[in-house]
Amino acid sequence: MKLGRLNHVGVATPSIERSVAIYRDRLGAEVVREPFDLPAQGVRVCFVDTPNSQIELIEPLGADSPILKFLERNPEGGQHHLCFEVSDIAQARDFFESGAVRILGPTRIGAHGTPIFFLHPKDMGGVLTEIMESPKQAH
Amino acid sequence: MKLGRLNHVGVATPSIERSVAIYRDRLGAEVVREPFDLPAQGVRVCFVDTPNSQIELIEPLGADSPILKFLERNPEGGQHHLCFEVSDIAQARDFFESGAVRILGPTRIGAHGTPIFFLHPKDMGGVLTEIMESPKQAH
Repeated sequence: MKLGRLNHVGVATPSIERSVAIYRDRLGAEVVREPFDLPAQGVRVCFVDTPNSQIELIEPLGADSPILKFLERNPEGGQHHLCFEVSDIAQARDFFESGAVRILGPTRIGAHGTPIFFLHPKDMGGVLTEIMESPKQAH
Repeated sequence: MKLGRLNHVGVATPSIERSVAIYRDRLGAEVVREPFDLPAQGVRVCFVDTPNSQIELIEPLGADSPILKFLERNPEGGQHHLCFEVSDIAQARDFFESGAVRILGPTRIGAHGTPIFFLHPKDMGGVLTEIMESPKQAH
């Protein structure tokens, strides 16, 4: 397997609105995408573009949201995961399944509409790691 | 001010050697730079390239290393900071000094040899944020 683009950094927040204000007004972000719900993952999502990558702001959606615990420990929000692209998600999954890395749950459709899965932070130097198939169109 | 490139994600680790093995053997990173000491910041540093950005692995250097506390709370390591580029560090510093964001310490030379400073995570949605002047050469 070959390490692809750092597609995005996932940043958990109690309020996308408040975080968007930080990235726009304090850091000068010029491209903030429209927020949307991702019910399958229990989060509301908003992408903020940098010239070379994206910040994925994630806010809890529903009482079972997997980021509620993270926000209990980090009430202001904070860095939640890193997402790297691969060219073929099935091949990547085979690769990790044959190795010493625990995969968290099934392959599913992620915020960019392509298949993704997560790797256990304990096997990845403490970093919750998302593996995402690159979108087919250029970006 | 205008948000520039996500230069790198800073990932704290108890062992650069162990983390390099994770990025190279588990994620397929092909470009791992030579580690070096950054005594002024109390860290040893190793950059791992992705096609569009970098992971900055940081390991404690010395008994006063600012990442020792982070590693006490996160013994496996984990995401420590995000670094965004700006074209002019003095202008960026003026901008933040006139606003509601606390700057942590003086402007100093960072791991890429250009001036940097840090912003307080409590003013940045829980994210320790490094502001770095872009290197003059293309990258």
